[in-house]
Amino acid sequence: MKPRGEEGEEEGAAGGGDPWKECAEVAVQLALRAGQIIRKALTEEKQVSTKTSAADLVTETDHFVENLIISVLKEKFPSHRFIAEESTAAGSKCVLTDSPTWIIDPVDGTCNFVHRFPTVAVSIGFAVNKELEFGVIYHCTEERLYTGRRGQGAFCNDKRLQVSKETDISKALILTEIGPKRDPATLKLFLGNIERLLKAQAHGVRVIGSSTLALCHLASGAADAYYQFGLHCWDLAAATVIIREAGGTVIDTSGGPLDLMSCRVIAAGTREMAMFIAQEIQTIHYRRDDEN
Amino acid sequence: MKPRGEEGEEEGAAGGGDPWKECAEVAVQLALRAGQIIRKALTEEKQVSTKTSAADLVTETDHFVENLIISVLKEKFPSHRFIAEESTAAGSKCVLTDSPTWIIDPVDGTCNFVHRFPTVAVSIGFAVNKELEFGVIYHCTEERLYTGRRGQGAFCNDKRLQVSKETDISKALILTEIGPKRDPATLKLFLGNIERLLKAQAHGVRVIGSSTLALCHLASGAADAYYQFGLHCWDLAAATVIIREAGGTVIDTSGGPLDLMSCRVIAAGTREMAMFIAQEIQTIHYRRDDEN
Repeated sequence: MKPRGEEGEEEGAAGGGDPWKECAEVAVQLALRAGQIIRKALTEEKQVSTKTSAADLVTETDHFVENLIISVLKEKFPSHRFIAEESTAAGSKCVLTDSPTWIIDPVDGTCNFVHRFPTVAVSIGFAVNKELEFGVIYHCTEERLYTGRRGQGAFCNDKRLQVSKETDISKALILTEIGPKRDPATLKLFLGNIERLLKAQAHGVRVIGSSTLALCHLASGAADAYYQFGLHCWDLAAATVIIREAGGTVIDTSGGPLDLMSCRVIAAGTREMAMFIAQEIQTIHYRRDDEN
Repeated sequence: MKPRGEEGEEEGAAGGGDPWKECAEVAVQLALRAGQIIRKALTEEKQVSTKTSAADLVTETDHFVENLIISVLKEKFPSHRFIAEESTAAGSKCVLTDSPTWIIDPVDGTCNFVHRFPTVAVSIGFAVNKELEFGVIYHCTEERLYTGRRGQGAFCNDKRLQVSKETDISKALILTEIGPKRDPATLKLFLGNIERLLKAQAHGVRVIGSSTLALCHLASGAADAYYQFGLHCWDLAAATVIIREAGGTVIDTSGGPLDLMSCRVIAAGTREMAMFIAQEIQTIHYRRDDEN
């Protein structure tokens, strides 16, 4: 945590020993409110559009929820900055500065949402001086609220989260996601990586259609590792705090430190497991989030 | 439905217009009771053993729940027959006769269960004259009870289930599972089938680790198709009634009629979607359930 009062002048930063307390509380309220809207929208017919590929979908709900979250936050914290999925798709710059920055995925698992497949989340992360301070993820249909604050642990509703301590791939459950690119070369690499891990005798590989919720399963110890190419900073920001506060490791697929804008990640309960995955998988190239 | 009173002499068959009513009610009570045991066991340390492969796991809970379900049913319906996952693994014959037969998977998603990955179900199906009469599936952690009775519809808790009407693969969400065989040739075929469907522009493929619950998602319209090689009659029996009663199609991977003992299946919301998948995927050979 930062020294007392250092951010005392900033909006949302409490002057005492608990900076960004108000911001974290607002994030929880907004995630719950967004979750309610998404839950209702899950039962209704949807207008679906595509973005970068036929598999990269967006709905009115993504836009509506993102606008709602950002408008409330802008009013409360006018000096803060925002990185959010649909604003970026619409052309906003996706650059992380030292300013207090909200990193938002209004509907993670949009393809699931379109199909009413009940694995859909809201993800709200918050960084200051490029350091992630807290993350809030709300599983809309199961009404599970995942939260993590730097130095204060991670929780699912009121239960403290603890990652798996597994180091042996032959006892591991691995999570991944397909990613938006579907050209033949990308598919070969994507499937080849699953093949490598299954040949290394991983118990299984799961693909649930929500990076954010897969990362929450990792944080809760229900899986031993997660890796992906082609996810975005808004899929990762909130979950990274939650996993680290649950005792886990979040690194780059090269084995080096995480780069939030690099569109690739390995998360694991143990550093050994993360490094094993890093050595095993082949890189799938995606453009960085901040490359414009 | 059978003519009134035809099974009047059989245990569990009501004399009136609702044969097997008592059996279906007992199945629901047992699924709920088993679910409670599994939910509690999910929080505890587990002794894990392997069966046909390093990925084919079994725990004390699988045995305990199966014994509980069968002992209650045997006492109530002593003339009925049983096909169940762990009894079969222990050497019991797996043959479907004309007798009233219970087809039971005590813990579907054992690998998930071992990892506390919260996608685990109890599945109880019931057949008479080799025809499936009802199915009960209980999602243990989300407390969702799926039921289907021949001619009487399918439900999740109190909500009527209705499959997707999608016929176009490029708008489809597809579910599959890896299966227990993990030799290189099987893995190639398994991953090759996913590749074919993604190249045909399916929105996505999901692998959740429970055949039974994947089939329940299909029944609820949250996915458009499911296919698998290497699943067993106890993964399929209950779900088949539920899907058919929700308006869906359950066929063999060849495109022909379902053979419950063949260890392979395609289920879809529409016949067109099922036939598309049948033409697209390559066969993975597994031994039949009744081959001993």
